[in-house]
Amino acid sequence: MRVLIAGVDGYLGWALAQFLTLRGHEVAGLDALLRRDWVAEVGSTSAIPIASIDERLQAFREIYGRPLTYFSGSLLDFDFVCRVYDAFQPEAIVHLAEVPSAPYSMIDPAHTAFTQQNNIIGTLNILWAMHQHAPDAHLIKLGTMGEYGTPNLDIPEGFFEVEYRGRRDMLPFPRQAGSFYHWSKVHDSNNVMFACKIWGLRSTDVMQGVVYGTRFDGMPDDPRLKTRLDFDQCFGTAINRFVCQTVIGHPLTVFGQGHQKRGFLPLQDSMLCLSLAIENPPARGEYRVFNQFEETYSIQDLAEQVQQAAAAQGINARIQHYDNPRIEASDHYFNPDRHHLVELGYTPRHNLQADLGAMLADLLPHRVLIEAYRHVLVPDIRWDSHHHRSHPIDEA
Amino acid sequence: MRVLIAGVDGYLGWALAQFLTLRGHEVAGLDALLRRDWVAEVGSTSAIPIASIDERLQAFREIYGRPLTYFSGSLLDFDFVCRVYDAFQPEAIVHLAEVPSAPYSMIDPAHTAFTQQNNIIGTLNILWAMHQHAPDAHLIKLGTMGEYGTPNLDIPEGFFEVEYRGRRDMLPFPRQAGSFYHWSKVHDSNNVMFACKIWGLRSTDVMQGVVYGTRFDGMPDDPRLKTRLDFDQCFGTAINRFVCQTVIGHPLTVFGQGHQKRGFLPLQDSMLCLSLAIENPPARGEYRVFNQFEETYSIQDLAEQVQQAAAAQGINARIQHYDNPRIEASDHYFNPDRHHLVELGYTPRHNLQADLGAMLADLLPHRVLIEAYRHVLVPDIRWDSHHHRSHPIDEA
Repeated sequence: MRVLIAGVDGYLGWALAQFLTLRGHEVAGLDALLRRDWVAEVGSTSAIPIASIDERLQAFREIYGRPLTYFSGSLLDFDFVCRVYDAFQPEAIVHLAEVPSAPYSMIDPAHTAFTQQNNIIGTLNILWAMHQHAPDAHLIKLGTMGEYGTPNLDIPEGFFEVEYRGRRDMLPFPRQAGSFYHWSKVHDSNNVMFACKIWGLRSTDVMQGVVYGTRFDGMPDDPRLKTRLDFDQCFGTAINRFVCQTVIGHPLTVFGQGHQKRGFLPLQDSMLCLSLAIENPPARGEYRVFNQFEETYSIQDLAEQVQQAAAAQGINARIQHYDNPRIEASDHYFNPDRHHLVELGYTPRHNLQADLGAMLADLLPHRVLIEAYRHVLVPDIRWDSHHHRSHPIDEA
Repeated sequence: MRVLIAGVDGYLGWALAQFLTLRGHEVAGLDALLRRDWVAEVGSTSAIPIASIDERLQAFREIYGRPLTYFSGSLLDFDFVCRVYDAFQPEAIVHLAEVPSAPYSMIDPAHTAFTQQNNIIGTLNILWAMHQHAPDAHLIKLGTMGEYGTPNLDIPEGFFEVEYRGRRDMLPFPRQAGSFYHWSKVHDSNNVMFACKIWGLRSTDVMQGVVYGTRFDGMPDDPRLKTRLDFDQCFGTAINRFVCQTVIGHPLTVFGQGHQKRGFLPLQDSMLCLSLAIENPPARGEYRVFNQFEETYSIQDLAEQVQQAAAAQGINARIQHYDNPRIEASDHYFNPDRHHLVELGYTPRHNLQADLGAMLADLLPHRVLIEAYRHVLVPDIRWDSHHHRSHPIDEA
């Protein structure tokens, strides 16, 4: 299948280009390389050094024996998007080309505006260009489980049947996102749903949990093919950050009591689930929502899992609670469905200790690099805009 | 109360500045005068000639005996918004400064992007500037009943209690808007709700029905104080357009069978309801939603009401059905709540024939002007992007 990956230079995009190639797909990618700039802007870098895009493309050709078709440009340039579709004629379009950070979106008015504008307008251009140049293609749009927030109900996959005052209807499940970034994904979801309705486009909107991991099964060892791994307060997510902290002996930074529950999945499962979505497209006009995660954990549980994996390698990891820079429920119900992907053949991996062990092995060689960025590990971007660095609140 | 009106040069804004002044409030306005450009861009003009902003301000001073404080600039300029708040120190901010047209947002990719960017970023700047410069002010945000779409359920005011799989929660009512414009208002609503939650701002989000009318009770007769009235396919709404069509003997353009039901209210009621919201602010941190309309009608009913009002003045108005340029349900349930405003003292006017008679009297003197713009009355902007002008489908 011809698959176009928007955001091919990112954490998921660069891995997915390889994963799909190994599954026999013909892959093209587009990117404006902004992720590298954003991470530099917040004073950080990838814990695993990544090659330049030219080196990446060269290595791709060498290792996989065929080129990765690459288009350099921005989704904000509508004519560029149309030219890419015309040149590659994608059957599937995987949209990973968004600002992916909640804290980044909360820094100040300019970062809020940039995040929402970049994500919303990029997605609108993807949709309009499909309508005009690739109406039969399948859009796989990366959303987030964070779109739902933490309602006191089970979380279905996108839609639910409601009875209200004696009448019934199937309705979009209400979203209660927790940052201007998460809301940008909700706005996208709404725009994508509407485009499918009026233009007969087809889309899978992926409410993905938090991804962790440094590799997928069978990833080549060539250092030019490694995907990035962020650990700073903006672009690093819970498990990835905890493992980097472990590597340099920094306490694991758990916000609040760590009772917040979220869905998580290893990079391998993310790649597999996206492939299953791509290989099983919906009908024309269908907008479907997949909740994509392996397991739900509380943050405290995860920190303890990292602690346990570290102990198995003789490393002592300490958990430290910090005052929470976010405004979010600290104790809450959380029970999301995950049926659609299982129906397509997804078997959750459930091998967290082994995954964490592999991550530690991949990251320990980069200890000196991570140590040089120790200052990015404790957050100072706060949802209430009071700029101070989070402080320890107790010891667990 | 010190009230800042964003979008003071528009249809509602210019009337509201006068209405609030007559109620004893101290009013300031800001505008970038873009509405005049947009209407010109689609080849139309206001059916009621409007004065330049300078003439308007001059007349305001003469008739009301005090100046209207005016700030010239755009909400997309965050520093400008902050300067306005600092200078005027508003207690209430009425946000009417958005692109208000569904068809305009559906023209092409550029108009979709412009509509969502203008509306979303303008509202984000309003919110951030409140957080930083006017945290105690009350935001009255103009949304639309169109945010809800036409679910097969009663429509509550913003939130509803849901039972699902044996658990209960109070949730935002799901939105199913019908154009990229309407979705921009949904995106705004979500951003405003979130800002109230994290920053303790207070806001009334007004889900307003379609407004019609040329005047409010007690509006001065000075032609420089008249508010605009649009009738083109983009910025003209159902009743206003029907009356303009009546004035020049053009058939009333009903889309499809006209069974679509919507909420409507006269300009007088819109002004009164906004005043009630302003004068009864919510508590800090409260985000409340008002459904604001006088009555629900089908489009066919309204066309017949206009026909009847015309007959009373000896004018024969003909109703013509056209193929619907929009993609929307043609027959549907529609039963929205409207409790909050009634609790604040709103008594629906229910005087449609008199209102239509007054509109005809105000618009008949401008027959020659409207006649010159006859070509803007039949839509050619279609939700499926097939550019052809709607054609008659039968006679009613």
